[in-house]
Amino acid sequence: MNITLDQAKNAIKAALAKAGELGVKMNIAVVDSGANLTAFARMDGAWLGSVDISIKKARTARFFDMNTGEIGKLSQPGGSLYNIEHSNNGLITFPGGIPIRDNSGQIIGAIGVSGSTVEDDHAVAEAGVQAIS
Amino acid sequence: MNITLDQAKNAIKAALAKAGELGVKMNIAVVDSGANLTAFARMDGAWLGSVDISIKKARTARFFDMNTGEIGKLSQPGGSLYNIEHSNNGLITFPGGIPIRDNSGQIIGAIGVSGSTVEDDHAVAEAGVQAIS
Amino acid sequence: MNITLDQAKNAIKAALAKAGELGVKMNIAVVDSGANLTAFARMDGAWLGSVDISIKKARTARFFDMNTGEIGKLSQPGGSLYNIEHSNNGLITFPGGIPIRDNSGQIIGAIGVSGSTVEDDHAVAEAGVQAIS
Amino acid sequence: MNITLDQAKNAIKAALAKAGELGVKMNIAVVDSGANLTAFARMDGAWLGSVDISIKKARTARFFDMNTGEIGKLSQPGGSLYNIEHSNNGLITFPGGIPIRDNSGQIIGAIGVSGSTVEDDHAVAEAGVQAIS
Repeated sequence: MNITLDQAKNAIKAALAKAGELGVKMNIAVVDSGANLTAFARMDGAWLGSVDISIKKARTARFFDMNTGEIGKLSQPGGSLYNIEHSNNGLITFPGGIPIRDNSGQIIGAIGVSGSTVEDDHAVAEAGVQAIS
Repeated sequence: MNITLDQAKNAIKAALAKAGELGVKMNIAVVDSGANLTAFARMDGAWLGSVDISIKKARTARFFDMNTGEIGKLSQPGGSLYNIEHSNNGLITFPGGIPIRDNSGQIIGAIGVSGSTVEDDHAVAEAGVQAIS
Repeated sequence: MNITLDQAKNAIKAALAKAGELGVKMNIAVVDSGANLTAFARMDGAWLGSVDISIKKARTARFFDMNTGEIGKLSQPGGSLYNIEHSNNGLITFPGGIPIRDNSGQIIGAIGVSGSTVEDDHAVAEAGVQAIS
Repeated sequence: MNITLDQAKNAIKAALAKAGELGVKMNIAVVDSGANLTAFARMDGAWLGSVDISIKKARTARFFDMNTGEIGKLSQPGGSLYNIEHSNNGLITFPGGIPIRDNSGQIIGAIGVSGSTVEDDHAVAEAGVQAIS
């Protein structure tokens, strides 16, 4: 199963609403089950550097089927996955990337958000996920 | 001046409508005046390889402020811009990328479309441009 | 639907048999429906440069859901897709890459073969496809 | 001396068996004495991000003729090889990559495994090595 464009749009719409609520400017990316970009939106004035970060967060979340922040806990100096970020043309391993599941629990894609604190990034990504699951 | 997310969404909406009319599956990318990705949508079942091509077409159109196909005429063997595609981490110089202008004629971004023949790609990109200009 | 490892192994086994029959040394790559590597084998003494070519052929075939050689016809100087090879971190557009379909005709992956003439490459890839479809 | 495709296949077969025993889904890569990919297999449902990591582990193990985890001990902040991961288009220096030796002790290639904990990754890689040495 693969996320549809309609589902991806709904995720982005919900994420944009959450960002507006928080008063932050976000880049929001959605990838499909093959980690290929499906939909993307950058809010007016959002950080340019977060275009790539949001896409990499979405890809990272699908690459390992877990929240990006979970990987970041393991990739610290001395951690078991230290410097895993050098793989796959660059991973982003701090919070803001979350896998997207369908009703049956199967992963159909992932969302990545970047543009504010990692707490805000995660909250906005979570709002996107909730719009689908 | 810079394209807004609302304008970019309108361009993509119009492009998706045109693609539906033509019965083709497209990847559609919009970049801003700085050639940075602003919005993107991949129709269900559209070619995976066209994700990157649509983004590169939009960037190429803004990089040189002209339709991508115009550059392609000059990049042929013996042409004045032979193999310019090697620059900027890869250009795409066949039709499907068009600059986007505001009412005053100033360039505020560009759109790139990929997923069918270059004629269809260009027609869908043109529909996106018309929704804004 | 996505190709399984067992199916990918069968495709490679059949391709290796065909290569043996032709007396050529091949690199054989199979990707899934998301264009991600699933299985790979390099015959003893096969060209080292063909590792990357076989993988790129398989990815190219899935990126555009057609035989790589078909794209190569359109990417020649003066052709409608001239220099498309600059996209997606490098495409290979001469023969040797073929999409893989399941019984219902849906594309579930692709195979790429490199190591001899493009005619041999294509014949060996075709043998791999036949083992599955 | 160089690993043969038959040896590489045996290593992967043994590694797959060990992975099945552990109940984990692995990506398994084997490179030759020149650090070039020789054989690869991704188990159904294994992490997509581990395709690249398994290949980089195998290459890293052959690049420096030692277990990847040994390099990781030296690449920590303050360590003598700090951030060596930036070289060679990206190294992976946590456990899961092991050189493969022939009966005489000469290195003929390496194996890299990714898809679970680093302990599991290493155990599966070790099973692959044992099938040859």
